[in-house]
Amino acid sequence: MALKAQVIYDFTAEPGNNELTVKEGETITITNQNIGGGWIEAQNSRGEVGLVPEDYIELGKQFPAFQGAATTTPTPSVGNVASSDLAFFDAYAPASTPATNQVDAGGLSPQPDTPDTPVSPYISSPDEASNGNDPWSVWNADPSGGSNNNWASNPEGTQTGKTAADPWSSVSQGHPQAYQGPGAEDDEWDDEWDDMKSTGGYAESESGESGAMQRGGAHASMKIKFPGFSKSGPELYLLCKQIAKGKDKLPIYIGEVGPVWSYPEPQLDCVVADPKKGSKMYGLKSYIEYQITPSNTNRTVNHRYKHFDWLYERLLDKFGSAIPIPSLPDKQVTGRFDEEFIKMRMERLQGWMTRMCRHPIVSSSEVFQLFLTYKDEKDWKMGKRKAEKDETVGVMIFTTIEPEAPDLDPTEVEQKCEQFSRFTKAMDDGVKEILTVGNEHWKRCTGPLPKEYQRIGKAFQNLSSVFTSSGYQGESTLTDAMTAAGKTYEEIAQLVAEQPRKDLHFLMETNNEYKGLLGCFPDTIGVHKAAIDKWKEADKLVATSKITPQDKGTMAKRVSTMSYSLQAEMNHFHSNRIYDYNRVMQLYLEEQVKFYETIAAKLRQAHGQFTTM
Amino acid sequence: MALKAQVIYDFTAEPGNNELTVKEGETITITNQNIGGGWIEAQNSRGEVGLVPEDYIELGKQFPAFQGAATTTPTPSVGNVASSDLAFFDAYAPASTPATNQVDAGGLSPQPDTPDTPVSPYISSPDEASNGNDPWSVWNADPSGGSNNNWASNPEGTQTGKTAADPWSSVSQGHPQAYQGPGAEDDEWDDEWDDMKSTGGYAESESGESGAMQRGGAHASMKIKFPGFSKSGPELYLLCKQIAKGKDKLPIYIGEVGPVWSYPEPQLDCVVADPKKGSKMYGLKSYIEYQITPSNTNRTVNHRYKHFDWLYERLLDKFGSAIPIPSLPDKQVTGRFDEEFIKMRMERLQGWMTRMCRHPIVSSSEVFQLFLTYKDEKDWKMGKRKAEKDETVGVMIFTTIEPEAPDLDPTEVEQKCEQFSRFTKAMDDGVKEILTVGNEHWKRCTGPLPKEYQRIGKAFQNLSSVFTSSGYQGESTLTDAMTAAGKTYEEIAQLVAEQPRKDLHFLMETNNEYKGLLGCFPDTIGVHKAAIDKWKEADKLVATSKITPQDKGTMAKRVSTMSYSLQAEMNHFHSNRIYDYNRVMQLYLEEQVKFYETIAAKLRQAHGQFTTM
Repeated sequence: MALKAQVIYDFTAEPGNNELTVKEGETITITNQNIGGGWIEAQNSRGEVGLVPEDYIELGKQFPAFQGAATTTPTPSVGNVASSDLAFFDAYAPASTPATNQVDAGGLSPQPDTPDTPVSPYISSPDEASNGNDPWSVWNADPSGGSNNNWASNPEGTQTGKTAADPWSSVSQGHPQAYQGPGAEDDEWDDEWDDMKSTGGYAESESGESGAMQRGGAHASMKIKFPGFSKSGPELYLLCKQIAKGKDKLPIYIGEVGPVWSYPEPQLDCVVADPKKGSKMYGLKSYIEYQITPSNTNRTVNHRYKHFDWLYERLLDKFGSAIPIPSLPDKQVTGRFDEEFIKMRMERLQGWMTRMCRHPIVSSSEVFQLFLTYKDEKDWKMGKRKAEKDETVGVMIFTTIEPEAPDLDPTEVEQKCEQFSRFTKAMDDGVKEILTVGNEHWKRCTGPLPKEYQRIGKAFQNLSSVFTSSGYQGESTLTDAMTAAGKTYEEIAQLVAEQPRKDLHFLMETNNEYKGLLGCFPDTIGVHKAAIDKWKEADKLVATSKITPQDKGTMAKRVSTMSYSLQAEMNHFHSNRIYDYNRVMQLYLEEQVKFYETIAAKLRQAHGQFTTM
Repeated sequence: MALKAQVIYDFTAEPGNNELTVKEGETITITNQNIGGGWIEAQNSRGEVGLVPEDYIELGKQFPAFQGAATTTPTPSVGNVASSDLAFFDAYAPASTPATNQVDAGGLSPQPDTPDTPVSPYISSPDEASNGNDPWSVWNADPSGGSNNNWASNPEGTQTGKTAADPWSSVSQGHPQAYQGPGAEDDEWDDEWDDMKSTGGYAESESGESGAMQRGGAHASMKIKFPGFSKSGPELYLLCKQIAKGKDKLPIYIGEVGPVWSYPEPQLDCVVADPKKGSKMYGLKSYIEYQITPSNTNRTVNHRYKHFDWLYERLLDKFGSAIPIPSLPDKQVTGRFDEEFIKMRMERLQGWMTRMCRHPIVSSSEVFQLFLTYKDEKDWKMGKRKAEKDETVGVMIFTTIEPEAPDLDPTEVEQKCEQFSRFTKAMDDGVKEILTVGNEHWKRCTGPLPKEYQRIGKAFQNLSSVFTSSGYQGESTLTDAMTAAGKTYEEIAQLVAEQPRKDLHFLMETNNEYKGLLGCFPDTIGVHKAAIDKWKEADKLVATSKITPQDKGTMAKRVSTMSYSLQAEMNHFHSNRIYDYNRVMQLYLEEQVKFYETIAAKLRQAHGQFTTM
């Protein structure tokens, strides 16, 4: 007897991808449970066979005999994370994440409200704006400012529930699983660790692999994967006996603007281009591969989104305490083979890569260089394994930092830290305001405004048609001119509707990127605050003989090192910010000037056709 | 015992006009019932005394003893027009007229929903747009296209109720009162025939004087005042024995475009300017006087709105069958001393006078010349009396028309008439479309759009403020530039909001004027259609010996004369239309070009402040 299943969420098949569209409530027959990657093969009542996400169905729901099987189907599963811990992680979920707990050690729930309509990256109707598949939805600042906000941990912010002043307050009771990495076994490379698993996110509950569906700037994953990221985190560094020596040292110099990283010359750059569709599982599953060409080798390497994701996880683990590592562009289940979606994802991956290339520490790191310059699969696999075994991660990154400057007083360290916290919070507000306003402007420019210009154009043309019917001599100069004026307004309608893609788009993308980047600061700054707090306890710890007076001196020195690191990072951030905003404002205004000049020229031409006798 | 009254509608006093603000439901004491002009003097509970419109109160409503008095208060009165007749007039009420019957022989009901807020001629919020006091509301085409539409009498139009194919079908059973004219007795000139009576419209029910509150292009008054305007109207001319001879002849020539009026050289023009506030009734009542300077004498004469109204009525009586006489700008009860309102009324009176000056027949007429060039009050009074006694009115105007061309075949006459009817109906639709679209555009440009640009400007400036707080060196170039860009968008917001007054205003005014003008055509063309219908009956009339075969010949000849008149008028209309639309489109586009160029220049300047290092 065939295994039956009940569909619990609507699922729309990607064309040409061997998938099966199913509707909630439909009963399907499982034809192959061993597809893997979170998929099963099923047949519907019309006899059509195709792949369906495992988590969209419930086995034997209407067939009590199979109830046992259903319990083994993780739908929706939270893996082996205790629910009490999830409440904490939930508070750190990005604002745009649905209520389900999407932490990397937990199970990834599919989004039940995934719409059937194809995903346009420029969706602008208010109905669709809140939809999870609208890539612009990330532009909408969360007006509630609730607990789903990284900034809740900010001293000035509201502290809700378990999200106390210290964002890591409950991490110590956190998750037992350390991050193993998807490539722990290399033979998974082309099988289990497939695109679906990583970007579709259906099988995460079993592997415990990372993959928040929408990161939105919050390092939800960071808090559980790396043991150092607990309340005791900073101590690990502050009190560690051995400071690694060797060529991996990260010096900090005092430049004109203060502490600065050492910047390599020439600056690394890369081009992300030519997304190509590949397939595997004997053509059953497809994925998109991007061609990345770094400026140092000028040799192209291929990577899928999940490889970027792997890199992101490595960078976050290694540098996240010292350097805000912005999230990758959002993952997306449906519409991921849409040309428009692929184009936008590529553009955002390019933006992310450019930002990483521009960072002197990140771009020089071994793992980043591996990603850009691996020679062959063997090279890649070996590099991967090495990167995943790197122990200089979390707060231990500070062991490699060597400021060439006198130690700072912890009070000064604290003041600087608070200043950075205030600034990044304020900038986050400012950026979100631009995103909100820009989003509304986008809607108006692509919705009611061009419609109105079109109607004006039509009204002129209609009146012109009436005039033509007058039978009066010498009418044609006026009617030709009025028709031309009408057409001009129709052209203006089109210009208005197309303009946001030419200018507002980049303003939005840049601010969106900064929103993501700024969303990392509460975590990064939090590590510093925790270290300062720990240093403040030093006297007590000495008194209770938990540490020696010498340890206290070491702590002060290391807090100073951390501060130099944060200052260098802030100066890097400021310098990039000034460049980025100058550039994007120039681009925006340049295109705006062109836009208004084009309209003026068109109208001038239309004007010239009229004559006063 | 003082006479008490109950206020039934809110009324807001004009400042400095001895009026009393009263609220619905308030009880007031009548202190003088003999003010006249539709006003009474009353005292409120706080002891304040002032004038209140008679129709806004109900005498003794809460005092049964005064019930008798209440019945003599015409609130709202329809005068002595039988209600069966009103149903007919109602069908001819302009689209923007409220449901109350506003025909000149009937009583004028005050508008109960008169708002307390001062009237701005540029009201643009959707709430206020439908308000009767919004002068732009006349721009809104009636989307229902119901029976409140002149065009209902058009052969292509829907015929509803009593509004049969012939718009005058029920006039013959109509009103017994012929129009006497407000100046029938000269001693009324400075007393009874006061501004309030005419523009306030509260006393019409007693005097039977003309004064539709909103004319909107429909000659509701025309149908009852002049006896010739009945179904038998055209016969009066078609079969009259005597054709007046003398110097009043109106020749029609065959020009390049066909039949044309004789155009005087130089063309008359006039300037309406300097509205001045005057007062009468010992300062109790105020009015506005306009200074009109015609180009032929270059000598200024003074006229109040009611004098324009008198002129309008004379021109309508005399020429309405042959020439569409556009309505005067709307009357208005409240806000009539508003600077903005006075300015707009003056502008519209100027437009109306210019159109009349441009018409060769109207501008050369004795009554029009009297209005523009009277020497003193005696001259004016004598001229007025003469004009009111003129017998060459209604269809009899055709007796003065002398086409210098061979007679036309009645079939050709009918075809031309139908062509003009189709054209004017189609143009009416086209003009209303522009008004509807323009009105919406006006609202957007003065409402949400500048708000959005303001928010964009604020968002840039806010982000700039955040940047200023960074403490990073070399920030000021960017922050200065971003602040400037933000201010530029605030300036753009203002430009956008102010622009409609600079360009759309004239486009709207011109189309509004044409809407009024086109609203006269159903009446004018109707006279011609009735004449053609009468001619078609000629054979039957001959057969039944009601007319002689010779009479039939006369009828054909006179139908031909009427056709030449209509053709000359249409050619006049077309020539003016071509001039007007060329002019207004030029002006509109010229201002639009300036607008977009100004914005482009401002943005270019803002752009120049940014630097990419």
